[in-house]
Amino acid sequence: MNPTPTPDAIRSRIEDSFKRQRFMQHIGAELLRVEPGVVEIGIARNDALLQQHGFLHAGLVSAILDSACGYAALSLMDADSGVLSVEFKTNLLAPAAGDRFVASGAVLKAGRTLTICRGEAFAVDGGTRRLIAAMQATMMSVRGRDGVRD
Amino acid sequence: MNPTPTPDAIRSRIEDSFKRQRFMQHIGAELLRVEPGVVEIGIARNDALLQQHGFLHAGLVSAILDSACGYAALSLMDADSGVLSVEFKTNLLAPAAGDRFVASGAVLKAGRTLTICRGEAFAVDGGTRRLIAAMQATMMSVRGRDGVRD
Amino acid sequence: MNPTPTPDAIRSRIEDSFKRQRFMQHIGAELLRVEPGVVEIGIARNDALLQQHGFLHAGLVSAILDSACGYAALSLMDADSGVLSVEFKTNLLAPAAGDRFVASGAVLKAGRTLTICRGEAFAVDGGTRRLIAAMQATMMSVRGRDGVRD
Amino acid sequence: MNPTPTPDAIRSRIEDSFKRQRFMQHIGAELLRVEPGVVEIGIARNDALLQQHGFLHAGLVSAILDSACGYAALSLMDADSGVLSVEFKTNLLAPAAGDRFVASGAVLKAGRTLTICRGEAFAVDGGTRRLIAAMQATMMSVRGRDGVRD
Repeated sequence: MNPTPTPDAIRSRIEDSFKRQRFMQHIGAELLRVEPGVVEIGIARNDALLQQHGFLHAGLVSAILDSACGYAALSLMDADSGVLSVEFKTNLLAPAAGDRFVASGAVLKAGRTLTICRGEAFAVDGGTRRLIAAMQATMMSVRGRDGVRD
Repeated sequence: MNPTPTPDAIRSRIEDSFKRQRFMQHIGAELLRVEPGVVEIGIARNDALLQQHGFLHAGLVSAILDSACGYAALSLMDADSGVLSVEFKTNLLAPAAGDRFVASGAVLKAGRTLTICRGEAFAVDGGTRRLIAAMQATMMSVRGRDGVRD
Repeated sequence: MNPTPTPDAIRSRIEDSFKRQRFMQHIGAELLRVEPGVVEIGIARNDALLQQHGFLHAGLVSAILDSACGYAALSLMDADSGVLSVEFKTNLLAPAAGDRFVASGAVLKAGRTLTICRGEAFAVDGGTRRLIAAMQATMMSVRGRDGVRD
Repeated sequence: MNPTPTPDAIRSRIEDSFKRQRFMQHIGAELLRVEPGVVEIGIARNDALLQQHGFLHAGLVSAILDSACGYAALSLMDADSGVLSVEFKTNLLAPAAGDRFVASGAVLKAGRTLTICRGEAFAVDGGTRRLIAAMQATMMSVRGRDGVRD
């Protein structure tokens, strides 16, 4: 049994992993908050990321929610575990129209193998913040950095 | 009641909409197949689209599945309807490792307001094709091109 | 536009509907709480409701969560609307072992046609209350009591 | 590594487990088909199982789908493994009106720890069979008969 990582160790571990997520870098996503069990990711509106009605693509809303949930799960795992998404379910509640978007993921139940998370995504426009999507997801702990799903 | 669109009208309508999906264009996604009730979208491996283990980001796998399911639903709707994703659920079955990826969406039940779809995503590597993800999704018909979710 | 029902009218409407849910009566389920946007349903442990390991059957946990979410959605609808479940997703977090079980459903977003809810189920054993399941669900408003899904 | 069970051993193992599912017995559910990777469960219409509009309760449709998917997963596991539902997602496609209902579960991907299944439920009325629900589910292998979820 490894000692529980400190909050600082958790944060730097997740920041390192996030930097290696080429896709998150590519779309300009940023880690806004990392605490044990809670992670927030932000992204600015960008024309390249829209769907046919001019809103942020629903798949992208789901992608940042998935990352926020995955890192929230990872933040409670042993230092030698990696995380993989088993499944996620996304309800799209309102069009993703806004200047910025924030996805927040939180652990509902952390288990040895499986961790269940919930996430919410918000569109931010000036001072207002509107709920646009909700996720419920299952994450899996895998041993070793390059752990593979099965 | 409008006349049922011809397969050619369906195809050209979906191709037009797909071209306006900035995000799908941005990631290099292509429409591979459009038939009434079935749509396939392909994408090539691209370093910018990977996650921290070197696989296609799960959120992106979900995004092309969502688009394939949404267009499959749209292919059975009246010509003056648009489509919005209500919700989708994605199970990730195997790491998204491959040269190319294909997402196939098909209508399970078409309704007046809601259409239920299923999708499968495959990694293609040389001649082999491996199932990597499965989706079950609800799509909603909205009147007018710029239809908003509620 | 009908006037918004009073909390008392909402409560008596949901109590009437609940009494007509033969299955909920059959398993001994009770309405514990009805407020605008929030409904709780309770059920006692009963040998007839267990699965092969001696826990409350997961499908039954999901059934009372579905009812709690459906009534939570109905509590915010016009008096002439009925509610039908479009879909629900249930994560089972721990074995349903306990003397009593409580399912709580709450509205996340109420829309004209679709209402999105979240629910949590708890096992109650003496004084302790343990989270055993989480739901995210889509409910649909239908006009008329005998409204049919499509 | 245990030898792969024979189809007969699989069938008798699942029949034994099904008989111990008090809830499945209680609602009169029957195993209609057991093959490696595919299980079907049937149930007759019964007034005690209805919801407020006179249809089979959606939670019950989901319960028999969950059991069919769980046993389909179990049919491909080692003889010393048990199965628990991690999560399931159910889309309700049409009212559950009929004389009989059949839920069919099939394995989409069998893994060492997790098995992903899909299921469909049908209402049977005289000679017609109508699709009423679709499930996508994650099942988990647990060692020992009395395996507990975590």
